[in-house]
Amino acid sequence: MITVVTGNKNKAAEVTAFFAGVIGVSHVHFSGIEPQADTVDEIAISKAEQAYAALDVPLIVDDTGLFIDALSGFPGPYSSYVQDTIGNTGVLRLMGNAASRQAHFTTSIAYADVDGIRIFSGSVDGEITTVERGTGGFGYDPIFSVGGKTLAEMPMEEKNSLSHRVRALAVFRDWYLTTKSA
Amino acid sequence: MITVVTGNKNKAAEVTAFFAGVIGVSHVHFSGIEPQADTVDEIAISKAEQAYAALDVPLIVDDTGLFIDALSGFPGPYSSYVQDTIGNTGVLRLMGNAASRQAHFTTSIAYADVDGIRIFSGSVDGEITTVERGTGGFGYDPIFSVGGKTLAEMPMEEKNSLSHRVRALAVFRDWYLTTKSA
Repeated sequence: MITVVTGNKNKAAEVTAFFAGVIGVSHVHFSGIEPQADTVDEIAISKAEQAYAALDVPLIVDDTGLFIDALSGFPGPYSSYVQDTIGNTGVLRLMGNAASRQAHFTTSIAYADVDGIRIFSGSVDGEITTVERGTGGFGYDPIFSVGGKTLAEMPMEEKNSLSHRVRALAVFRDWYLTTKSA
Repeated sequence: MITVVTGNKNKAAEVTAFFAGVIGVSHVHFSGIEPQADTVDEIAISKAEQAYAALDVPLIVDDTGLFIDALSGFPGPYSSYVQDTIGNTGVLRLMGNAASRQAHFTTSIAYADVDGIRIFSGSVDGEITTVERGTGGFGYDPIFSVGGKTLAEMPMEEKNSLSHRVRALAVFRDWYLTTKSA
């Protein structure tokens, strides 16, 4: 049994569904300090340390960021704040007509138990578009394209097949099943 | 006697000089978690709580941000990260030819002792320029203008007379001398 630490019910439901029949999952909303750091690894590790100190049960927490090469990794760990302030319009303006439009989403999952903390990552490479496209999804989906289509232009299943979070969960699951539930 | 908690020696020296002959100051470099929050007040309070829990002496910590009205307050508490990634060029690009160019720097100082935590603020209002101007200062100084001159175009004394940090320190000093050292 592992505990998913998040304030986001949708995220908890997604994790529970992913592990259904394989790993038992419970959900706790624990408010630690969300640290400022340059990588989502560091943020996930810090949140896991805080949650484990308080809860003392095996648990996972995650953190996600969009990293744009031409902007030195911006908005990175501050993707939520940037989306809430300058938004997609601001990011497109920053990009201007930059030739390099490479970017990636990364999710880091930190797992904490009595043996310490381990980190698992999943990424998806794509490109920043020049205009917003598509009406699905949320956040950066309309400006992040993979194989010519933005995440906001994809049917839900196609988008899910590209999920950085699902990729990180899969890496964690494989390790956990091999190592912890023998 | 109060302890200044900072990893920045220049900042510690500035505070010590400001209080010389009035309040005794020592300096500690304590690394807590720098929290993500929407205001510099919240960040300063969190850092003060962490430092006080560890050090158990009367102390001050501060946090500073540049808040741009036309960008919903961006870069705000993440001013350092934004300066290190998209920089002044990025901020000017985001502003484009926005008519409203109002912005302010705010420093929040949190003081912690056995009675709890109090917060003191200092701000300076200005405008974001359309191009970088001046060779003095650092960070956002070349794009933040007050009374027609950027901070990077001012002699050091003139810039210091506009310091949000000094303003916050003065508010704290007046309160401290009235309340704590009767």
